[in-house]
Amino acid sequence: MEGIKDRVAIVGMGCTKFGELWDKSPDDLMIDACWEAFEDAGVDPKDIQAAWVGSTMSGRRGTMLARPLKLEYIPITRVENACATATDAFRNACYAVAAGIYDVVLACGVEKLKDTGFTGLPGNLEIITSEVTPPSPPPMQFAMAATRYFHHYGLSYEQGKRILAKIAVKNHHNGTLNPKAHFRREITEEQAINAPMIAWPLGLFDCCGVSDGSAAAIITRPDIAKNFKQDYILVKGLGIACGAQQAVLQNTYDYVHFQENVAAGELAYKEAGIKTPREEIDIAVVHDCFTITEMIIYEDLQWSPKGRAPEDVESGFFSLEGGLPVNTDGGLKCFGHPIGASGLRMIYEVYKQLQGKAGPRQVKNVRTGLTHNLGGSPGWFTSAVAIFGRRD
Amino acid sequence: MEGIKDRVAIVGMGCTKFGELWDKSPDDLMIDACWEAFEDAGVDPKDIQAAWVGSTMSGRRGTMLARPLKLEYIPITRVENACATATDAFRNACYAVAAGIYDVVLACGVEKLKDTGFTGLPGNLEIITSEVTPPSPPPMQFAMAATRYFHHYGLSYEQGKRILAKIAVKNHHNGTLNPKAHFRREITEEQAINAPMIAWPLGLFDCCGVSDGSAAAIITRPDIAKNFKQDYILVKGLGIACGAQQAVLQNTYDYVHFQENVAAGELAYKEAGIKTPREEIDIAVVHDCFTITEMIIYEDLQWSPKGRAPEDVESGFFSLEGGLPVNTDGGLKCFGHPIGASGLRMIYEVYKQLQGKAGPRQVKNVRTGLTHNLGGSPGWFTSAVAIFGRRD
Repeated sequence: MEGIKDRVAIVGMGCTKFGELWDKSPDDLMIDACWEAFEDAGVDPKDIQAAWVGSTMSGRRGTMLARPLKLEYIPITRVENACATATDAFRNACYAVAAGIYDVVLACGVEKLKDTGFTGLPGNLEIITSEVTPPSPPPMQFAMAATRYFHHYGLSYEQGKRILAKIAVKNHHNGTLNPKAHFRREITEEQAINAPMIAWPLGLFDCCGVSDGSAAAIITRPDIAKNFKQDYILVKGLGIACGAQQAVLQNTYDYVHFQENVAAGELAYKEAGIKTPREEIDIAVVHDCFTITEMIIYEDLQWSPKGRAPEDVESGFFSLEGGLPVNTDGGLKCFGHPIGASGLRMIYEVYKQLQGKAGPRQVKNVRTGLTHNLGGSPGWFTSAVAIFGRRD
Repeated sequence: MEGIKDRVAIVGMGCTKFGELWDKSPDDLMIDACWEAFEDAGVDPKDIQAAWVGSTMSGRRGTMLARPLKLEYIPITRVENACATATDAFRNACYAVAAGIYDVVLACGVEKLKDTGFTGLPGNLEIITSEVTPPSPPPMQFAMAATRYFHHYGLSYEQGKRILAKIAVKNHHNGTLNPKAHFRREITEEQAINAPMIAWPLGLFDCCGVSDGSAAAIITRPDIAKNFKQDYILVKGLGIACGAQQAVLQNTYDYVHFQENVAAGELAYKEAGIKTPREEIDIAVVHDCFTITEMIIYEDLQWSPKGRAPEDVESGFFSLEGGLPVNTDGGLKCFGHPIGASGLRMIYEVYKQLQGKAGPRQVKNVRTGLTHNLGGSPGWFTSAVAIFGRRD
């Protein structure tokens, strides 16, 4: 087997502003994101030989992208993989290019989540399937993770709550520096700690928002990427892992780590040739659906030793000026979370950071960036990790 | 660009009986199809490095396959592309293998259609999306095609109806030879012609059924395929085309051909190096959602000249003993149509025919076989064509 490292390049990306975009349809959002990507790459839609579109609820089948973009008679695949939808659409596009089937392809993710009435509660997403999903909404599932983490590592409610607040404060700060973010205001630790409780111990600011948005990427081979632009970005590793654990139903699930994250990280690090992730990853954009999720990700992806993430949060290791800035664009917390678009929104931030085009939130000397998604429910998550680097 | 020809091989396949399987869940169906494929290939589920699962309504995200098969911590992508869902899942699996990312992968399609109440009418599939779909159920859309075809080529109602009846009679006959088919009884032309009208001029026997079922394939590289079995099957071409035509809304759509079929066929023929499809294709399994669809496919895929398919139907060219037997397994009409499984069911038939293991419906000297799907609505169809061959 041969990995994906340095075999595909991104030559253009686009991303809409995220938010409650009541005056935009999914078609409008895809057009906005894809045309920014076309213009960034300097390609004409007629140059696109195949496409992948990710959405969980805002459209079906490949024609959902063909019609708004007038991409007639090319292959377009719709991918759905919960919160990892857009990353998996991107991944399949990369493999088709790496196989040499196509030279220039498009990956797009979209979600018009506000129109669906989606609240993260069961009754919309879960009940329409035949899955044996534990009947608890995401805030409850991740509240259990927070409770277990606090207990397992001996944090009091006050200690744990303050650590989580620091993560929310960091992501809110980063969001203020991002004109495309859904939420753009600073909050204080006290505001986060004293906010209305959603699912104990998670309060309002521990939870990400529900947003509309779209993001897109133009993918090609490195040997022709330089025809598009000099500062193209290379894919270094792609790892996805799906869980099939019975532990949740058997009440033996530990909730202080998510094995799908560990497995996806290991797959991507192996492909990218990364042995010391804490040192080698320069920035990361991860799936902070809840503050506790981001903290567990720090450990699952080998940036903090087990149980030691709180120390790294205290020291500011993951802030913009820290050793490994995480969610430099505001994360799900503030950029927002249109489910089928989030993976490509993350890649958009890493792409801009690697190019040195991230504006006021630019991190210095970014050479390797990582994105991470976590979709589904404890025990049967889909976790996706993607790693990117500069050509030089 | 490099085509897919001879770069991936199928070493195992499985398919459930199709029908109204009220006592089976989607999990049961996937387990049955995949375990037949595992046993056919001689692989253990632990050997599967990645998987693709296709379904339109019977599950979401990759974990829908991970859980029933206990495939822990591998990447599993859910693909959805209307009636071309399973073929597109298979196609993406092929590209990942051709890229050298994985050695052995699984593609599975499933649909528990009866549970959804699906009737092919709008109100279930169409209204949950934001698509601008013409508000007509599939029988009406294809009835328009039949009406236009009769008019355009000067067939009276009686002439056209009898030609369509011959296609239904052929597929019913083939279905009687297939123990896994949903419907297994002969019908006469008179029965088909005099059956209750569904959407004029299409009667009951011009329409396919609504079924439950699953099918699966094990895909690997040709250089290691011989470790699994001697009679592995090679992929020769994969073409998908999505439409984005405004013609339907503008009332200028011609309805006597479907350009998506023409485009997908051209892509697949080019990859496979096929210049004279009528002569070079030995058998085909195509998307006969309605008898008129099968007749139009004969022309779109270049087997009959435009307007001349009725002559080939009259002469028996597409029957089991004809020059190009089509829907040897009974087709959608009699094998059934669990949407997300149909593409892989078609590949299952071609695989068995190429291996000479199709039992009483075996066609002699099959060296090249083709499958075809058509999903969606006129103007924005997804059409998929796949071509397969023997190794020697």
